[in-house]
Amino acid sequence: MDENRPTDENPPYRDPNRSTEARVENLLSRMTPAEKVGQLVGTAPTLRPGRETVSGIAEAVTEHHLGAVSPFGHGGSPWETPEECVEVANAIQREARNTTRLGIPVLFYVDADHGHGFVKGTTVFPHNLGMAATRDPELVERAASVTATEVAATGGHQNLNPVADVGREARWGRIYETFGESPHLCASMSAAAVRGYQGDDVGDADSVIATPKHFPAYSDPVRGEDGSPVDVSEYTLRRVFRPPFEAALDAGAGSIMPAYNELNGYPVHGSKEYLTGWLREELDFSGYVVSDWNGINMLHHDHRTARSMEEAVWQATTAGVDVASVGGVEHAERLLDLLESGDIAESRIDESVRRVLGAKFRLGLFEDPYVEADRVEADVGTDDHRAVAREAARESMTLLQNDDDVLPLDPDLDSIAVLGPNADDLRNQFGGWSTISEPEPPGTTIREGIERAVPAETTVRYEQGAEMTERVDVDAAREAASASEAAVVVVGETGYRHEFHRSETDRGEFPTRSELELPAAQRELLGAVRETGTPTVAVFVAGRPLAMGWTVEHVPAILFAYLPGSEGGKAVADVLFGAADPGGSLPVSIPRSSGHLPTHFDYRPHPHPIEGSPREENPRPPEHPETYDPLFPFGHGLSYAAFETSDLSVSPERVGPEGRLTATVEVENVSDREGSTALHLYGTDEFSSRVTPVRELVGFEKVRLAAGERTEVSFEVDVADLGVLDDPGERRAEPGTLGLSCAGESVEVVIEGRFDR
Amino acid sequence: MDENRPTDENPPYRDPNRSTEARVENLLSRMTPAEKVGQLVGTAPTLRPGRETVSGIAEAVTEHHLGAVSPFGHGGSPWETPEECVEVANAIQREARNTTRLGIPVLFYVDADHGHGFVKGTTVFPHNLGMAATRDPELVERAASVTATEVAATGGHQNLNPVADVGREARWGRIYETFGESPHLCASMSAAAVRGYQGDDVGDADSVIATPKHFPAYSDPVRGEDGSPVDVSEYTLRRVFRPPFEAALDAGAGSIMPAYNELNGYPVHGSKEYLTGWLREELDFSGYVVSDWNGINMLHHDHRTARSMEEAVWQATTAGVDVASVGGVEHAERLLDLLESGDIAESRIDESVRRVLGAKFRLGLFEDPYVEADRVEADVGTDDHRAVAREAARESMTLLQNDDDVLPLDPDLDSIAVLGPNADDLRNQFGGWSTISEPEPPGTTIREGIERAVPAETTVRYEQGAEMTERVDVDAAREAASASEAAVVVVGETGYRHEFHRSETDRGEFPTRSELELPAAQRELLGAVRETGTPTVAVFVAGRPLAMGWTVEHVPAILFAYLPGSEGGKAVADVLFGAADPGGSLPVSIPRSSGHLPTHFDYRPHPHPIEGSPREENPRPPEHPETYDPLFPFGHGLSYAAFETSDLSVSPERVGPEGRLTATVEVENVSDREGSTALHLYGTDEFSSRVTPVRELVGFEKVRLAAGERTEVSFEVDVADLGVLDDPGERRAEPGTLGLSCAGESVEVVIEGRFDR
Repeated sequence: MDENRPTDENPPYRDPNRSTEARVENLLSRMTPAEKVGQLVGTAPTLRPGRETVSGIAEAVTEHHLGAVSPFGHGGSPWETPEECVEVANAIQREARNTTRLGIPVLFYVDADHGHGFVKGTTVFPHNLGMAATRDPELVERAASVTATEVAATGGHQNLNPVADVGREARWGRIYETFGESPHLCASMSAAAVRGYQGDDVGDADSVIATPKHFPAYSDPVRGEDGSPVDVSEYTLRRVFRPPFEAALDAGAGSIMPAYNELNGYPVHGSKEYLTGWLREELDFSGYVVSDWNGINMLHHDHRTARSMEEAVWQATTAGVDVASVGGVEHAERLLDLLESGDIAESRIDESVRRVLGAKFRLGLFEDPYVEADRVEADVGTDDHRAVAREAARESMTLLQNDDDVLPLDPDLDSIAVLGPNADDLRNQFGGWSTISEPEPPGTTIREGIERAVPAETTVRYEQGAEMTERVDVDAAREAASASEAAVVVVGETGYRHEFHRSETDRGEFPTRSELELPAAQRELLGAVRETGTPTVAVFVAGRPLAMGWTVEHVPAILFAYLPGSEGGKAVADVLFGAADPGGSLPVSIPRSSGHLPTHFDYRPHPHPIEGSPREENPRPPEHPETYDPLFPFGHGLSYAAFETSDLSVSPERVGPEGRLTATVEVENVSDREGSTALHLYGTDEFSSRVTPVRELVGFEKVRLAAGERTEVSFEVDVADLGVLDDPGERRAEPGTLGLSCAGESVEVVIEGRFDR
Repeated sequence: MDENRPTDENPPYRDPNRSTEARVENLLSRMTPAEKVGQLVGTAPTLRPGRETVSGIAEAVTEHHLGAVSPFGHGGSPWETPEECVEVANAIQREARNTTRLGIPVLFYVDADHGHGFVKGTTVFPHNLGMAATRDPELVERAASVTATEVAATGGHQNLNPVADVGREARWGRIYETFGESPHLCASMSAAAVRGYQGDDVGDADSVIATPKHFPAYSDPVRGEDGSPVDVSEYTLRRVFRPPFEAALDAGAGSIMPAYNELNGYPVHGSKEYLTGWLREELDFSGYVVSDWNGINMLHHDHRTARSMEEAVWQATTAGVDVASVGGVEHAERLLDLLESGDIAESRIDESVRRVLGAKFRLGLFEDPYVEADRVEADVGTDDHRAVAREAARESMTLLQNDDDVLPLDPDLDSIAVLGPNADDLRNQFGGWSTISEPEPPGTTIREGIERAVPAETTVRYEQGAEMTERVDVDAAREAASASEAAVVVVGETGYRHEFHRSETDRGEFPTRSELELPAAQRELLGAVRETGTPTVAVFVAGRPLAMGWTVEHVPAILFAYLPGSEGGKAVADVLFGAADPGGSLPVSIPRSSGHLPTHFDYRPHPHPIEGSPREENPRPPEHPETYDPLFPFGHGLSYAAFETSDLSVSPERVGPEGRLTATVEVENVSDREGSTALHLYGTDEFSSRVTPVRELVGFEKVRLAAGERTEVSFEVDVADLGVLDDPGERRAEPGTLGLSCAGESVEVVIEGRFDR
């Protein structure tokens, strides 16, 4: 291609004083079809066995024009230290800059799911289920900002996050990556994460492009089996699953990732309806769509809607995928063939290339594609960053039960037994989406957190007692508990990513998809400890809302720690000894068993034709006990303090269908210690032309109050958000009565207007 | 209204020589608004407390013009004997004929779900799940014909059956009323039932109008909770749930009943889309839509789409409901108000009245509305009818496991222990939808069936051993087993209708919605018996596919008897002692636990993004073990004989997209005894523009062969039935390869044509 080499040394696209649009057009006009296609394809070191080297990747960029790489920050990358990442990023960038005809910089993306966890020494946050328990979007934003800084400091430009999926299936192996079961909560938190990742300007040194995923619905797979169809009504798609994506895009997300699975028989990666109709036409998205890892191949191999890999590429591109995240050289070749044969129009390719180049210009990569090596020490895993992670973990801790006021424990106790399979296991505490290999990355286990929290003279007796499904010297655990003033038993799950063991039908495995109850070995350990009479706390380190009915019956105090990350051990100790109030509220209902699923607070009301609740006049109950009957409901979470809520009022009390109202409630800390509580405002449309949920979350606010302190909390509500959703997907409030409730208080609002039937 | 009384004594509508259309128009032209409205409303004795008398009902007919009554043949009717039914029917009919202005006869409908079970002395068949296990549509048709005869003999004209719902939710309390999980099987059986109920002409003395229900989808309620939304994609609605209704209407069903629940946020009873768009415009249905019991009230009380009961009536009528089954006088008054206010057009009312009057003319009621009292003895619960029920029960018996050839038992054994909560309980054996009160109706329990089957000198030791969840002298059961040559333990569920106990969270109850495993008390009984070493058979009398994993591990022989009805005890004995081959094949998959749901053989293929099956070239596997992993699959069912299948072939091997093909397979009884087996033909579309199931049932055939006998079985297949279903709901076969398989044999067919992408 030497004949195409430009003669001018400073072409217009390199001029930072020109507009991004002008630079994009100038560059586009200079590109060959192969160069264009290359910008729409990425690769990864794991993709080409034997070429997991910088030069192997660089070859894909220089010889095949590939424009994006995921060199590190994902599972299976050979480069795990921040220093290696920087070196690899700069080396690839140098090749792109110096040895390609146009010198287009490479875009690097990573899977920084809960911090930049696939790189060692980074700050690892609680997974999103815990982050949602904090009920603090500002904290979620700060955490995302820390992650963005650490990703950028290792050379990354885009995070394939946040997960904006609404977690409706407790069995699913990715529910811990979601912000829980409420569309409103997920929308708030996803938008906060986008703001945190992208900052004020994606060109800033501590910002990366956010990629909400997995559009538009992934998180309610049949049987809880990862990747299986989401087979729900379009009503549910639009009402439950799409809102967090709308919020994330409103927050300015520069990219988006489609779901692996199919909806309604159409795999999303090949669906023009979802990727163009919904995304471009309905939602006005102007960023770029990046495929999930194997999302395009799956059209051929799994969904079987494409008769060949070439057809899979055609389908995805035609549907609206801009970038094949790790399509590799083969994808680029197929796409070029389709372009040259005319099966895909050049205008379609140009449209995608414009989006990608625009992002690279906005990231400032044409000015400076390199990352400075000294940023690692300054910006990765710093004390400040770890403090944010510890705060997040502490605020996520959800106290489910505290009979006999077992908690908080006396920090000056003489002895404490620390037991259980997850008491001293950093891997399980991290959960999935993070690298734990020798040497272990920095992090504090719960055992270590407790040891650091108590005075030197306190005896800490550690015994594992049980693995996931196997007994390990239960007698020693019993003796340790018997000899101690308190016992903390840390139970739960091992880490997993996407899915569980292959042979889940073997009842000896845990976790499995089908079973949410703790295995017998862990229950036995809890029972043995409890029998000693020593005050006992069960701490759950788990990614899913386990059906902990047995534990509720047998153990007085239960703390749900989710997957709390690198600082989780300190955070658990903070809460156990009362240095901090347990700050979390459940983001998902905890079901009684996997046979009770699904269990969401926002179910739709329905008849009970026989054996139903007694019928009363105008009876819409807040809940049918048969229907929403979790072990612990969404929103549950105790404090060491005590709060009283009163005087819920709303203004105005009558509004039009486009109206906005303010609900106000008083809350007082009636205890003698500081503490926090989360207030939830629920709305109910009394009658509607289409069935609406018995209640929906329309606002939440976490308040921290000193002993005796009182405050007023206000919620702003668009009444349209409580209205019906009609078939074209428009929200509209209908005339009638809206009920609002908060912490047991309730009030009504009249929506004025004439009801047309 | 005396001024309206016609002067002519023989008005044209009474002339049987005129066409039905002419008679309808003549009668309609004579009716007042109140009389018209009355024809669209029914009542029931339970509806007006204190008026559960013939004169109370007659008053609704004579004073309020009501045109339909469900006086008996449903739960709660005060009239339980056939003689009472006849008397009541004729008394009401006399009032309608003699004391109303126009003498329009009344239509009587009943809930004859598995025979005319709410009337004593009738023939009670296995519930539909068992009927589907027979794989014999001709037998289903004969059974329905018997039911029609018995209903007609008591004065009934319409059966609010068959259940055409596809049973996709194992927890649901009505799955036993369905023909199982396969749309194709449900379609075949529903059509057969319609033919059986209606016969050649609904005017015949042994025919009644059939009412497939619950249109269009009811049987996959959220959480398995009766009446809750069916929230699935429109693709699934059209592909899975609607086909049996299409088949039932094609078979000529004169009426149809909408589902109680809502789909996509729209309650079906108020949905113009489903009741007019789908039913009238797409499916060309010309019969009448009759509401479910409280289906219209629920629009106001439960779904909350109607702000008043009047609005509920408006919604249902506008949507397309013709008859409010038991709306009663209040409904008639509301409908008359709406007609008089102009909110509902008279043309809409006339349309419904024409449908109802047309049915009454076709039933011959204007010629003779009475039933002869001597039909009861001739036609109810006759030996011939009971023989059909026994045959049906025998052919439904599904042998799931027969280790060590425990079955068949030697009919000449010296002693046998008959144990378990369902061994001697006619109520549980009937299941729901039948009256069991003192004195018990005729019927044979399993204990009685066994006692009748063995020689007089055989010792039959009966011990209950356990109730559902309580121990009852397990030691006595163990001793009985120990002293006997064989033990039959009959376990399972109690009867239920729609739902279970209110307090299902009380783990002491069974059955509950969430738990499919046998309760501990029943497992303990099985375990105690098994430990004696006596050859043991577990017989399940249950309405749902219980997760019988424990039993599979501990008991060598398992027979699933479903809910076998009045002749069930004889049928079980027939099979236990080898007088008959167990004729059944599972119509539903038996799941490993309620945490494994849903489990259907026709799941859609999907990616396993991580930890999936190893990838091979062109790998579409017949099943992903993680996905369809039941304890026993759909179609499973052992015979005492043994069969070999071979030489599956297809002709032609290449067809067009509109083509029809014949698949042929050879089957041979390679054992030394007569037996039966069901052959299933499955089809798979290799690639399709919309995801299609990994396999679909396209044909089935039950064959009975003598020892050594060989036969050829043919299946006719429209290739369009295996094609994609596009968004307007049209089926179309796409060019490419179709795979067909039967009993381990497979063959391919090429669909010719050009594939447009």
